[in-house]
Amino acid sequence: MSNEIRYTVIGAGHGGKAMAADLAAKGFTVNLYNRTAERISEIVLRGEIELEYENSASRYCRLANVTSDIADALDGADVIMVVVPASGHRDIARSCAPHMRDGQIIILNPGRTGGVLEFRQILNQVGCTADVIVAEAGTFVFASRSTGPAQARIFRRKNAVPLAALPATRTGHVLETVCEAYPQFIPVPNVLHTSLDNMGAIFHPALTLLNAGWIERTKGDFQFYIEGVTRSTAHVLEVLDRERVTIAAALGVRARPALRWLRDAYSAKGDTLYEAIQGNPGYQGIKAPRNLRHRYIFEDVPFSLVPLASLGAQFGVDTWAADAMIRLACVVHGTNYFERGRTAEDMGLKGLRVSEVKRYVQDGEVNPVYSLAAVRNGAA
Amino acid sequence: MSNEIRYTVIGAGHGGKAMAADLAAKGFTVNLYNRTAERISEIVLRGEIELEYENSASRYCRLANVTSDIADALDGADVIMVVVPASGHRDIARSCAPHMRDGQIIILNPGRTGGVLEFRQILNQVGCTADVIVAEAGTFVFASRSTGPAQARIFRRKNAVPLAALPATRTGHVLETVCEAYPQFIPVPNVLHTSLDNMGAIFHPALTLLNAGWIERTKGDFQFYIEGVTRSTAHVLEVLDRERVTIAAALGVRARPALRWLRDAYSAKGDTLYEAIQGNPGYQGIKAPRNLRHRYIFEDVPFSLVPLASLGAQFGVDTWAADAMIRLACVVHGTNYFERGRTAEDMGLKGLRVSEVKRYVQDGEVNPVYSLAAVRNGAA
Repeated sequence: MSNEIRYTVIGAGHGGKAMAADLAAKGFTVNLYNRTAERISEIVLRGEIELEYENSASRYCRLANVTSDIADALDGADVIMVVVPASGHRDIARSCAPHMRDGQIIILNPGRTGGVLEFRQILNQVGCTADVIVAEAGTFVFASRSTGPAQARIFRRKNAVPLAALPATRTGHVLETVCEAYPQFIPVPNVLHTSLDNMGAIFHPALTLLNAGWIERTKGDFQFYIEGVTRSTAHVLEVLDRERVTIAAALGVRARPALRWLRDAYSAKGDTLYEAIQGNPGYQGIKAPRNLRHRYIFEDVPFSLVPLASLGAQFGVDTWAADAMIRLACVVHGTNYFERGRTAEDMGLKGLRVSEVKRYVQDGEVNPVYSLAAVRNGAA
Repeated sequence: MSNEIRYTVIGAGHGGKAMAADLAAKGFTVNLYNRTAERISEIVLRGEIELEYENSASRYCRLANVTSDIADALDGADVIMVVVPASGHRDIARSCAPHMRDGQIIILNPGRTGGVLEFRQILNQVGCTADVIVAEAGTFVFASRSTGPAQARIFRRKNAVPLAALPATRTGHVLETVCEAYPQFIPVPNVLHTSLDNMGAIFHPALTLLNAGWIERTKGDFQFYIEGVTRSTAHVLEVLDRERVTIAAALGVRARPALRWLRDAYSAKGDTLYEAIQGNPGYQGIKAPRNLRHRYIFEDVPFSLVPLASLGAQFGVDTWAADAMIRLACVVHGTNYFERGRTAEDMGLKGLRVSEVKRYVQDGEVNPVYSLAAVRNGAA
């Protein structure tokens, strides 16, 4: 019985608390880990999280182990659900690596662009020899909020969440393992699909930066999409989206244009991105970020736009719009996001040809770290 | 008597009509030229412009000749006042070149960045052999508006307008010639000063782009500086300004930082650009542009920011902020402003060392076009 699957949720933020409680409510054994002990002290005390669902009574969801000790958290876990901002993926990979054991599954919820590729590189680099399976979701499975120190609320569950393992040959095994908990996970051909269908890369940084003055002046008191998307800002989104779709095409991936995604996900009407966003009731009422120190910049620029631009540079696709956004974000935050962000090298793709990338995401072969090691050892 | 100085004003827009009328009101003989005949048909019919000054009765100012024939317009002129957007400077240079005669003075009002340097290059390239004197103003001498087909209004005269000729040895002669008309022109050491103290480069494109959504959504119905300048947008202005001042320093020019300029020009208080702008009563009531098809982008990006970035590239100064703004403007307008804009090559500075640039702006020597011609002719 798959209820015997034991989960560890990494990260006790808006998403992690909701997922840990949701899994426990479904009868699974769940550990919850958070690096900072204070964040989970109340949950440790109670041993449970109060989970509210939209339109139903709240439930008290008992967790097996709540800890800030990573070895303790991972002990006995079958599936490790990483629910932290992409900026935390590197640290999580490094701290998990020594404690992994054969057969454990790690899922990044979500990976943003290149999350699992970089995660795999780090596991290799720090010498993790366990046969772990890494996978990434295209987006988080629900919309949720932390509503108190030991409370979380799920607003909406998403219908279909793309998932791929690295290598793709293991996607089926991952889906089988987690399908009782999350049947909404659907397979996509490989992690290039989950990584390149990252719509946050297109919408978040550009709309935040092109409305920077308005956001700061009003503390985000306007409708982010309905008001902040105008003919010209929508045009910038279209150019960014074209860059993303072109990079995907260069890698043999048919990415879904944002316009079609809006039609599919929201049944939005309209022939242009501007019209589709204006005509999307799902965007009604969504306010702008309250300030510019927001994950729409500090997460989406280094872990969505930088990997896109880096892949564009390697595979010959101009990324003027992405570059403009990254540079502007660097100036606004006084941070070198090109350096801090996830590059093709971080993803283990530097120097690979398209055919090698495809083989790597499909079969796990042509891994430059392994290859390099092989060369060093005089093998192969 | 210097009232004998004959002026030709090129361009019958907001600035040109006001200047032509103002010069005529001061007793000078004035021709007015506009490329498009329709723009001046009413003035041709009346033979005069009705000029309103703030707080005084309007005057009817008789012009000597109003024409869209450039040869006719330049005939007999001592001083040619070019009052067109910087995007028109190239065409004006080309159309004036065949009709120039020795001793005529051309003043760009203003040149933006590198205006007179490029103007000189074009005169040379098209083989203008007349000994004409070219100069540029740092800004336009007054704030004015076209208020009807044959009407103009002057709101405010500026106290001190920097002016330099190319070469600088001729600045004195230019000032002597125009001082009766415009005593507010003051000499600066050379055209690098007029070009690099271009504050529009710093304020206009960045504030327009960082408030793009707000501008388009409200048709510019907010206070451009007082509301559109926030901590973060002001930070971007500061970085842009630092790039400008650093480029100037690389060229041996001590440019005035924007903060000091605000204190000098407006007696603005405050220790940061944000505070100085917020505390500047001169910015009260200035609305944002009504849309993004505005000279704050299509003039200031190619003729203020592109020359700055191009000089930065040549003289080893990083221009991340300027580059971000230029790229973003390219995306928003679907135009390659790097190509359309004024580069170091257009300014005749490509390949020159700092010492050669200094000598060129000072004495008019080390002009690469002349040098090239000299090499080709086997001379020197």
